[in-house]
Amino acid sequence: MNRIFNFGAGPAMLPTAVMEKAQQEFLNYKNMGASVIEISHRSPEFDEIINHCDSMLRELGKIPDNYKILYVHGGAQMQFSAIPLNLINLKPARKATFVLTGNWAVKASKEAARYGNCINIASSEDTNFDRIPEWDTATLDPESSYAYITSNNTLYGTRWHNFPDTHDVPLVADMTSEFLSREIDVSQFGIIFAGLQKNLGPAGLALVIIREDLLNHALPETPMLLNYKVYEEQHSLANTNNTFAIYMMSLVLDWLKEQGGVKKIEENNNLKASHVYDFIDKSDFFSGTAHPDHRSIMNVTFNLADNDLLSDFLKNALEADLYALKGHRAVGGARASIYNAMPMSGCEALVDFMREFERTQG
Amino acid sequence: MNRIFNFGAGPAMLPTAVMEKAQQEFLNYKNMGASVIEISHRSPEFDEIINHCDSMLRELGKIPDNYKILYVHGGAQMQFSAIPLNLINLKPARKATFVLTGNWAVKASKEAARYGNCINIASSEDTNFDRIPEWDTATLDPESSYAYITSNNTLYGTRWHNFPDTHDVPLVADMTSEFLSREIDVSQFGIIFAGLQKNLGPAGLALVIIREDLLNHALPETPMLLNYKVYEEQHSLANTNNTFAIYMMSLVLDWLKEQGGVKKIEENNNLKASHVYDFIDKSDFFSGTAHPDHRSIMNVTFNLADNDLLSDFLKNALEADLYALKGHRAVGGARASIYNAMPMSGCEALVDFMREFERTQG
Repeated sequence: MNRIFNFGAGPAMLPTAVMEKAQQEFLNYKNMGASVIEISHRSPEFDEIINHCDSMLRELGKIPDNYKILYVHGGAQMQFSAIPLNLINLKPARKATFVLTGNWAVKASKEAARYGNCINIASSEDTNFDRIPEWDTATLDPESSYAYITSNNTLYGTRWHNFPDTHDVPLVADMTSEFLSREIDVSQFGIIFAGLQKNLGPAGLALVIIREDLLNHALPETPMLLNYKVYEEQHSLANTNNTFAIYMMSLVLDWLKEQGGVKKIEENNNLKASHVYDFIDKSDFFSGTAHPDHRSIMNVTFNLADNDLLSDFLKNALEADLYALKGHRAVGGARASIYNAMPMSGCEALVDFMREFERTQG
Repeated sequence: MNRIFNFGAGPAMLPTAVMEKAQQEFLNYKNMGASVIEISHRSPEFDEIINHCDSMLRELGKIPDNYKILYVHGGAQMQFSAIPLNLINLKPARKATFVLTGNWAVKASKEAARYGNCINIASSEDTNFDRIPEWDTATLDPESSYAYITSNNTLYGTRWHNFPDTHDVPLVADMTSEFLSREIDVSQFGIIFAGLQKNLGPAGLALVIIREDLLNHALPETPMLLNYKVYEEQHSLANTNNTFAIYMMSLVLDWLKEQGGVKKIEENNNLKASHVYDFIDKSDFFSGTAHPDHRSIMNVTFNLADNDLLSDFLKNALEADLYALKGHRAVGGARASIYNAMPMSGCEALVDFMREFERTQG
């Protein structure tokens, strides 16, 4: 069966080995005569799956014991509401500080403003978010309940290479498009969250990793199923959770371990991204849109010298089994999302195609 | 491949034909070389799926044009918050009226009390929810923003056979465990909602059917992704939705149409339920727990004359490939959930097993 190279930003390509395993046992999980999606979230078999997810995440992500792992309904964007609902009350000023590095941070800030005082303390909007803005953390009000960043910016192809030291103010990071793609020090953060549909599994669920002292501060108007404490107390099973997503994540985590874990996948991701960026930087026809010092290794954004050729570029790419290379409408141009599941051969095929396109059309 | 008869209350058995189709195209949806869970929620292929869901639901459920169809994150229980957040403000008294027919209605009422004034106007708690309580709707305050019922009570095996006429007060119904299992008149309701994981698909998503005049009343503190208006305006794709669940639902709806639609499946469901209830009523060993006038055709609850034999009953049933017959802890005893996907042969196998158990152990 011919699998395309899928450069879509998400829902994204998953490892073929994972997909094959899920397919193989789709009607008959562990010889039960039923599918994993047809069994109770309170069955011993599902209990084993969610426990396995916990321990694999803790191992692969090096998550310290004083952090809790939650599986929260609604994807990353539901967290734009859940974060302020759970955290804004941490300090009396009910203040949250945002660094705006793109569309998602802007949306998160607007949503938080519903529940407290939002300070947008730095932004790269004036250069269409092509970089991470300079930010002197000495300007951070220590009375902020939290500081918020988007660690990797899917639309613009930028990332924070190093994270700001926010001292006693908990740092909250949306890591949707890069969690477990590179090594990070979880203890730098108060909360890390990520929608599953880039590196972790299918869509509809978010992973939330939260320092335990931040668990019990929800506003009274917090809906029960957005209250982190409820998730923590009931092992994310206060109601029927998205069992398929948790199951698929458990398979993805097994695969990631087989690849050698996060350190190894990061090395591989660096090689993959370099292969594409190196070509772009040598090309007279293609140019990167993100500032070179702030480039993401997950999302490579680029333009063609002649934008009129973009639709031909995308059409020809599709014919070469290179799928979903269109850039986000906020940026234009092209974008190659090369998450953990994208093999080096996909990046090679992309560069070969780009080289040939430049030679014949450029 | 041997499929068990799965009597679990949810996540529940799905039609084998649906599961086989999903398995077959799991790695390669419509010859794209990618899975349906790996493509964008904004792709033309997914657009076709969600549009198909809409039109099939409208056709099978006879949903009038002035009702909107929404696919909302978080399952039915997330609606326990979303309903008051979107509706309590409809009238100045901020009052909601609940009929308590079980655990889920009680939970929904408690959650609504976070946002307004809850009146629990009738309850069958004193008989452990073995029936739908009498309720004279003349007692309904017309200043209520809405009246709320659970149409089928999964835990207790009861259902509303006829729905109350609440006149100008919108009637909200949690139909999680019975939507599309029997014909209903949608125009009797302001909102119908249902978690997918009983009759419609996998877990993690709720279907919300809402009369359009009720769409635009959300409280200011409503999280963006619980605001019905946001879902309506963006065709449930304000963020990445649970694409797998929507896809699976589209297959289930196709299957339901092939079975002859809701009228036909209701006839079948009546026959299935009668087969089990008739046996129970003739048995000296088994007895139904729900009041005969209020019995559900989706969840059949029953007790054994000697409760000490329950664990043997469940163990032997499992050995006979009759899975998940344990009653909910709030009721005890046994429960057979016989949703649309359960064939008559499953009910026959259950009755044969029960007859034999009674003969040898009773």
